[in-house]
Amino acid sequence: MNSSTRIVHELLESAGIAVNGHKPWDIQVHDNRLYDRVLCDASLGLGESYMDGWWDCQAVDAFFNRLFRANLREKVEKNWRMGWYVLKSKLINRQSLTKAKEVAERHYDLGNDLYQAMLDKRLNYTCAYWKNAQNLDEAQEAKLDLICRKIGARQNMKILELGCGWGSFAKYAAENYGASVVGVNISKEQLALGRERSKGLPIELRLQDYREVQGEYDAVISIGIIEHVGYKNYKIYMDVVDRCLKKDGIAFIHTIGINISKTTGDPWTDKYIFPNGMLPSINQIGKAMEKKFVMEDWHNFGPYYDKTLMAWHHNFNAAWPKLKDRYGDRFRRTWNYYLLSSAGGFRSRSLQLWQIVMTRPGTSQPECRLV
Amino acid sequence: MNSSTRIVHELLESAGIAVNGHKPWDIQVHDNRLYDRVLCDASLGLGESYMDGWWDCQAVDAFFNRLFRANLREKVEKNWRMGWYVLKSKLINRQSLTKAKEVAERHYDLGNDLYQAMLDKRLNYTCAYWKNAQNLDEAQEAKLDLICRKIGARQNMKILELGCGWGSFAKYAAENYGASVVGVNISKEQLALGRERSKGLPIELRLQDYREVQGEYDAVISIGIIEHVGYKNYKIYMDVVDRCLKKDGIAFIHTIGINISKTTGDPWTDKYIFPNGMLPSINQIGKAMEKKFVMEDWHNFGPYYDKTLMAWHHNFNAAWPKLKDRYGDRFRRTWNYYLLSSAGGFRSRSLQLWQIVMTRPGTSQPECRLV
Repeated sequence: MNSSTRIVHELLESAGIAVNGHKPWDIQVHDNRLYDRVLCDASLGLGESYMDGWWDCQAVDAFFNRLFRANLREKVEKNWRMGWYVLKSKLINRQSLTKAKEVAERHYDLGNDLYQAMLDKRLNYTCAYWKNAQNLDEAQEAKLDLICRKIGARQNMKILELGCGWGSFAKYAAENYGASVVGVNISKEQLALGRERSKGLPIELRLQDYREVQGEYDAVISIGIIEHVGYKNYKIYMDVVDRCLKKDGIAFIHTIGINISKTTGDPWTDKYIFPNGMLPSINQIGKAMEKKFVMEDWHNFGPYYDKTLMAWHHNFNAAWPKLKDRYGDRFRRTWNYYLLSSAGGFRSRSLQLWQIVMTRPGTSQPECRLV
Repeated sequence: MNSSTRIVHELLESAGIAVNGHKPWDIQVHDNRLYDRVLCDASLGLGESYMDGWWDCQAVDAFFNRLFRANLREKVEKNWRMGWYVLKSKLINRQSLTKAKEVAERHYDLGNDLYQAMLDKRLNYTCAYWKNAQNLDEAQEAKLDLICRKIGARQNMKILELGCGWGSFAKYAAENYGASVVGVNISKEQLALGRERSKGLPIELRLQDYREVQGEYDAVISIGIIEHVGYKNYKIYMDVVDRCLKKDGIAFIHTIGINISKTTGDPWTDKYIFPNGMLPSINQIGKAMEKKFVMEDWHNFGPYYDKTLMAWHHNFNAAWPKLKDRYGDRFRRTWNYYLLSSAGGFRSRSLQLWQIVMTRPGTSQPECRLV
């Protein structure tokens, strides 16, 4: 056993994971170059070697749950590549108007057939609310309804949604509360399907970056775009919300969050799933809302993202026979790794899901403390 | 009308407040030196001149509500005295072990008769929870019960309370949930009465600074001490909680908060009410909990502090006949100014009341999202 092999074995052992063991979270190593690659490239090497079939695991989610709980990622990540990656995040605005488009083209435009097979029937690509739900469809409706109630959705209310996906929230709010919604998005595929689905409703879905929106609304919300905004632009995001919100309006954010402030995302996720993404901390969002907003409520239901991701994972693999010709086997490994490693992140409580309600100083507190 | 007079008149007008007007929030000026003093000493000058009887107002709470909504304090505060005060807050740890004692001696030791006359029957000197309450006694019990439920209080649970006041929480948790509580406090007067009140219960109340606590507990909580901790010590506070909390324990904070990060308190409040106090921002608390805790829930019920302060104000003035010989008329003006200006701060939404639940990464989310 050479030294890389020994180090990786020991690190995994410290997390209760055995190489070639028989527990669901143990890994089966098919190519011994894995050990050098992981020590050299950390998270990126671990993911790429999985994509290349160098190792396997019966329950990748359970493997990552153990990995995160033992802080293994932090232990391996302190190398020069990570240093360069962090430096780049400080020098460049990785979520500029131009660079922001990359994730739309490379992720959200992948193919509506993929997302329709994986997601609930209303096409929600964010965490569902499982409190009283029996299945993904119910849990996603419950999430949409929770948001409507937190922002006080009502007949003819004007809502602006920054990053509107397939218009799923817009459609729900229009159909169930009579609200009119303007949604902006930079994914052409999502918009095309979204416009088709929202025909006849008081909904306008625009191809536009969130930074370019003007107008005045009763509520300005976003569901799952802060993950793409980047720490350098959180203040700009709050400026946009402030500019577009009526004096006594209500602002709402639904986002994944992390426990420790960073300036970059995970290198593997950045390269293969969400280019230029990164997750916010309380500190970073708290700082960005200063001088503009009162934080009315900060709800954490991260554990429900574990359940949501496992449901997506189930749907994705069940639909694989009709997807495989278009996407190919390497994509299947990549996508499973993405869904299951994320589920492990939430299960280990490294990742959180936040819903934040904000108003302006001087306004009364809305009825937004809901469960 | 000289220039100071004109400037102050105009500032007040911009907030809808008239000098010698007839609305409840208008002010009656008895001494024209008020104008120079306010421009020179801002918040400190306004408060001291009220104590000196230079001006009056039928509803000081409504006056401050308007003042805060118009941001008048910020407009007047940018003078050299404020600059010196801020500089001092950066150079000195104003909440060191020695300096921390000042507020105990000068505020909490003022006299138990005063607090017994003003507060609810259980002696809670923090924001009550009015959701389903008819009066202060009910609202304070509801607050204590809400905290017990958020931390999962149960038979024989070991709770550490940093800054325990008169042991009011300890007594409630012991009597109603069978928990055993260790409370620490640096106010001798509070401890003396607290020990008397908690006789026969599994409660230990100690004269000790929160920084000096050792031991291991199922829950570590504080109700209204972060306001005295100071931004330089938030990390130390979190270290203490971390050190004293069992692996799967639950941490809880109940504190006043503000919308914008600062390093000092209000100069008048600092001089006459709470020496060395200052209020935290989300950003500051969020930063301090990093690398240790998961934020499970952040509940804001600031508007209930307005109601609580108005109830205290009512009780204080009703009891004044039996208090006046001991405290004197200048104290009455000071105390009313303190209670009512604070109520105005909450009513204008400049001040918030936060309850924050925290756990460690790796533990399951507790049932702490309660209303």
